[in-house]
Amino acid sequence: MAKTFIFGHQNPDTDAISSAIIMTDFEQSLGNKEAKAYRLGEVGPETQYALDYFKVDAPELLNEDLTDQEVILVDHNEFQQSAETIEKANIKHVVDHHRIANFETSAPLYYRAEPVGCTATILYKMYREEDVEIKPEIAGLMVSAIISDSLLFKSPTCTKEDKEACEALAIIADVDLEQYGLEMLKAGASTTDKSAEELLDMDAKSFNMGDYVTRIGQVNTVDIDEVFDRQDELEKAMLKASAEEKYDIFILLVTDIINSNSKVLVVGSEKDKVAKAFNVSLENDTAFLEGVVSRKKQVVPPVTDALTEEA
Amino acid sequence: MAKTFIFGHQNPDTDAISSAIIMTDFEQSLGNKEAKAYRLGEVGPETQYALDYFKVDAPELLNEDLTDQEVILVDHNEFQQSAETIEKANIKHVVDHHRIANFETSAPLYYRAEPVGCTATILYKMYREEDVEIKPEIAGLMVSAIISDSLLFKSPTCTKEDKEACEALAIIADVDLEQYGLEMLKAGASTTDKSAEELLDMDAKSFNMGDYVTRIGQVNTVDIDEVFDRQDELEKAMLKASAEEKYDIFILLVTDIINSNSKVLVVGSEKDKVAKAFNVSLENDTAFLEGVVSRKKQVVPPVTDALTEEA
Repeated sequence: MAKTFIFGHQNPDTDAISSAIIMTDFEQSLGNKEAKAYRLGEVGPETQYALDYFKVDAPELLNEDLTDQEVILVDHNEFQQSAETIEKANIKHVVDHHRIANFETSAPLYYRAEPVGCTATILYKMYREEDVEIKPEIAGLMVSAIISDSLLFKSPTCTKEDKEACEALAIIADVDLEQYGLEMLKAGASTTDKSAEELLDMDAKSFNMGDYVTRIGQVNTVDIDEVFDRQDELEKAMLKASAEEKYDIFILLVTDIINSNSKVLVVGSEKDKVAKAFNVSLENDTAFLEGVVSRKKQVVPPVTDALTEEA
Repeated sequence: MAKTFIFGHQNPDTDAISSAIIMTDFEQSLGNKEAKAYRLGEVGPETQYALDYFKVDAPELLNEDLTDQEVILVDHNEFQQSAETIEKANIKHVVDHHRIANFETSAPLYYRAEPVGCTATILYKMYREEDVEIKPEIAGLMVSAIISDSLLFKSPTCTKEDKEACEALAIIADVDLEQYGLEMLKAGASTTDKSAEELLDMDAKSFNMGDYVTRIGQVNTVDIDEVFDRQDELEKAMLKASAEEKYDIFILLVTDIINSNSKVLVVGSEKDKVAKAFNVSLENDTAFLEGVVSRKKQVVPPVTDALTEEA
C-alpha cells in the first residue's frame, strides 16, 4: 500500500496541526495503515499547549519530495499555502473550510468542503457518518482546533455546527470548554517573547488576488498596544519580507481575543485600496477595525474585492 | 430568499441534466423553495428518452446573467464548461465527480466531490445521509444518469458504489436495469440523423492542458463504421471549429457501446502527442483504442500528461 502524506497549511495553526493528526487517525481507522501526519512549519505555543494537554506528539516536519506521492490536504487547498512540490503530488482527498483557489488536479478526487468555522468540525461529521470511534485525545484536538479557529465561538466564522460539535466533543475529551479554551488561547497570545519576524510569520498566509500577491498575518493578543509599541520594527520586517517574497501588500491583523476587535498594520503600494476595503483611513499605516477577528470572513473577501475591482 | 440556479455542464449529457433536476429536488426537500434547475444546452435523445420514460420535464435553458446570483453546480466545476457569467456568480455548492481545475471562489462553500462514476451516485448518498425521501421519478433519473455515465457498468469509471446505488434505485424506480438501460443507450446512439456539427457537439468538453486548449467530443454508437463513413465531413467540421474556437487539438472519441471499444479521430498541430499518449500511431488521423470507453479516465489523464510534459 502506498504511503499517504497528510498535512495542513504552511505556518500551521492549531486547526492545521490537529486536523492532520485527526485525519490520519480517521484514515487508519478505515484501514489505511500507511497514513501519516506531517506539518509544514513550526508548532506554535497555542498548539503546543493543546498537544501537551492531550498528550499527543506533534507531527513530523515534511521534508520529502511529494512527486507522484499520495497526499491528503486538510485545512487548506491553495497551492501557495501548501508543500513546495504539491503540484506534482497525487492529491487523493481534501477536507477544508476555505474558499477554493489556485488548486488543480489531473484526476478525480474526494473533496469535502463546508463553510463552517473549522476543519475539525467537518472531520467530526465524517467520523459520525462512517461510525468511527472518536478517542478522547482526538476529541481533545478537535475541541482545541474549534476553539482556536472560533476564538471561543466569538468569531463570525463560527457556526451552530461548530459550537454543537465542540460541546459534544468536550464531553468525550473531558474538559471544561471555557476554562480550557481561555488557557489555550492565552498560551498562544504572548507576543513579548517573539521577534518581529516571528510575529509576522506565526499565522500568515499568501493570497493571489487579481494581479496582486497579498500577505495577511494574524497575531492574537490580550493587549493590542503591546504589539503596536513595536510598530517601527514590525513595518521594517514587513517591507523586507515583501521585497524578498514579492508581496504587493502585507497586512498584519492584530486581534484582541478578549474584546474581539483588531487593529491592522498595512504596508505596500496598494495600501489605500486596503483602507477602502474596510471603509477606513489609515493613520500612520494603521486602523482600528471594530468587531473584526476573522481573516477568512472579514478580511480576505473585502480585500479581494478591492484589489480585483476594475480600475 | 434568494433564487438558487442549479445546472450541469455545457453540452449536457444525461448526468448533467438529471443531476440538476435531482439536486433541485434535494434542495427543495431541505426547504430551499427558490431552487430551480436549468440546462446549458440542448437535451439529447438519450436524456429525452429518460425524461419521457419517467415523465419529468426538461429544465429551462439558462439565459440569465448570473452576476451576484446564488448558484449550485452539478457534474462539473471547470469554468470553461459552465455558464458564461459563472466567474461573477456566488457559488454556494458543487457536487461533482471530475478533477478540479479552472475553478475559483472568493468565499468558502460546500464542495462535495468523490471519484465515483456518476454525480447521481453522490446525490444518492446525500439523500440517504440527510434522510430525504427519494421519489420514484427521481430514482429513475438517478438510474438513467448512472447507466449513461457507466455505459451499463462497463466503463472503468464505474465503481462498486455506482452499481450498488443503481441496483437499489432501480427497485424504487421500478425498472429492469438491463432492459431499460440498453433501450436508453440505444436511443442516444443513433448517428445517421445528425449533421457532422451535431455529432461533434453532442457530448464535447474543452480542457486547458498546459499551454493547449483541447476539445474532446464523444459519440456513442452501435456501429463505429457508420460514423467513420463520414470522416472527411467530420474532419472539416473539426478544423473549422478549432479555427473558430481556438482549439489546439480536437479529439473525437467514437465509442462502440456494445463491445466497449473506441476509435478516435484527431486533428490539430499536436496530434502526434495525442497518438503518443495512447501508444499508437495515427493512420489517416484515426486509431482504434481497445477497451477505451471513458473520456474522463482513459483519455483526459494520458492526453493531459502528454501535453504538459516538458519538451
